[in-house]
Amino acid sequence: MSVDRMDTYATLYARFKSEIDSRLSEVVAQEKPVSIFEPARYILGSGGKRIRPVLLLSSCLAAGGDVENAYDAATAVEILHNFTLVHDDIMDNAPARRGQKTVHEQWDANIAILLGDELMGLAYRQLLRTTSNRLTDILKCFTEGVIEVCEGQALDKEFESAGAVSMDQYWEMIQKKTGRLMVMSADIGAMIAEARDEHHRGIIEYATHIGLAFQVLDDLLDTVADDSFGKVIGRDIQEGKKTFLLVDAMEHARGEALEWLRNVGLRRVTGDDVVKKTTALFHELGSIDRARGQVAVRTEKSLAALRSLPDGEGKGMLEWFARMLLHRSI
Amino acid sequence: MSVDRMDTYATLYARFKSEIDSRLSEVVAQEKPVSIFEPARYILGSGGKRIRPVLLLSSCLAAGGDVENAYDAATAVEILHNFTLVHDDIMDNAPARRGQKTVHEQWDANIAILLGDELMGLAYRQLLRTTSNRLTDILKCFTEGVIEVCEGQALDKEFESAGAVSMDQYWEMIQKKTGRLMVMSADIGAMIAEARDEHHRGIIEYATHIGLAFQVLDDLLDTVADDSFGKVIGRDIQEGKKTFLLVDAMEHARGEALEWLRNVGLRRVTGDDVVKKTTALFHELGSIDRARGQVAVRTEKSLAALRSLPDGEGKGMLEWFARMLLHRSI
Repeated sequence: MSVDRMDTYATLYARFKSEIDSRLSEVVAQEKPVSIFEPARYILGSGGKRIRPVLLLSSCLAAGGDVENAYDAATAVEILHNFTLVHDDIMDNAPARRGQKTVHEQWDANIAILLGDELMGLAYRQLLRTTSNRLTDILKCFTEGVIEVCEGQALDKEFESAGAVSMDQYWEMIQKKTGRLMVMSADIGAMIAEARDEHHRGIIEYATHIGLAFQVLDDLLDTVADDSFGKVIGRDIQEGKKTFLLVDAMEHARGEALEWLRNVGLRRVTGDDVVKKTTALFHELGSIDRARGQVAVRTEKSLAALRSLPDGEGKGMLEWFARMLLHRSI
Repeated sequence: MSVDRMDTYATLYARFKSEIDSRLSEVVAQEKPVSIFEPARYILGSGGKRIRPVLLLSSCLAAGGDVENAYDAATAVEILHNFTLVHDDIMDNAPARRGQKTVHEQWDANIAILLGDELMGLAYRQLLRTTSNRLTDILKCFTEGVIEVCEGQALDKEFESAGAVSMDQYWEMIQKKTGRLMVMSADIGAMIAEARDEHHRGIIEYATHIGLAFQVLDDLLDTVADDSFGKVIGRDIQEGKKTFLLVDAMEHARGEALEWLRNVGLRRVTGDDVVKKTTALFHELGSIDRARGQVAVRTEKSLAALRSLPDGEGKGMLEWFARMLLHRSI
């Protein structure tokens, strides 16, 4: 891809993002009840990459649709995503997000519960503004997304107290918790565009691989990101999260190493060197390499899935977007 | 109304209720994730009067519709109602409901948050099964209901720390928090029946009065119900809730009495005689009588609103239902 083309896509991304940001501001411009709309402005105005709405808009474009018809749905998926963040942060007891205190820390858990609930309602309100012959299908897709995301979060929480989690269980969980909203966004974008079946299938396959690769990369960055990435290294390890790395390492470890990893998963190990020792095991056992391999293979598969789509700005945007998302510093 | 006719309506109510109960069991028959569906069966199987679905079905019938087409929507409004109960109980720190521990007490707050979220998704899934030319309008109505209920709950929580609340603010709050789901249920029932405008308006007016009267009655029963009613008397007073009685009494009290009531509202009074003394003031200031008057007048208005509807089983059911709901022991 030439530098000029890449500039074009970066510009398109910036345009999508700014349009979404401006619609989000309208959604939360309401004054009362203050206890909902003040935190609503706080969370929706706190930035974020707007990955899901951009995926929806780009998918619509790639399938030959008019993005103007897709902005309400794109705004809806971003509101829905923020609902999951606000509620998950309570459950995960997370202190900060996007460089500021989480809603339940800045206010309290009650405010955060209520804000999340309101955001779900506001997301449906926004989605229902979409003009499309397929509106019922779009709403069904959105609703199945809501349900799967909740079920993915439930699995993630259940895994916290589980001694061992298989790779199959891991894929099922991230497919629901992270993958589903990405696939749903792409799916809705294609529906709004009234995509041909072949294109529609390609877009969904693309988003499926992107979603999974994105989560594996996120798991990887917890361990190998350099300081410049701005993440606290090793937080997942300290919390015993069943990441790709831990699940994979446990499938390959034996003896003492396995025992250690099992204890990491059950948060039974403490001390300053836990992150260091566990990271070393991830390297030794080949888990870091396999995670990198997963990201690379799935990135390639996501790009290959676009083959059936007509060349043009939309397809180019999806290709650029996959690379932008998945070539973060690893 | 003759005893025979009343038997007919009681039988119809029982049939509606049992049909809803059986559909709710199907909704929560799913096994996994266990951490969602175990509490889901617990809350949806814990009984309840199923007021909102019965209102939806009866409204559909009264407007000449086929109730068979309305069961999915009726199930949806009951699921949605249970979502509000589960989340409100966390926020209100409520220990018990329907004679059993609340979900966050039986499990924990995280489970209750996630269950509520899932229930909202399941409610939309159920609603989307409805076959109707007006499905988009139905979904919009449902969504505005979700939003208003959240905003009503926010106002209720904001009022907890407010020194004084005006009668107008009280009506706005209960219209959103309690009234909205009732009006929404009746509205959707009428939409499914493709009611004539005149009938539709009558049904909505009926439900509006029912919803408000139902909440005022609930406020009243906190103070004057006899033991046989099974409620803990005076809980609202102890919690400083801005009920009809407290708001009305504060608008009529002067001097020391006003000071006392203000302190009740701010939970600054303690001791065994708080409920007794406050109840005595409610009587003296005429608030009990005015609350009874509100229930009586709104019951009459709700019945009068049905005048334009054709006589028949549906209209009779709505009349019976209003009396059943609002003639609880006061």
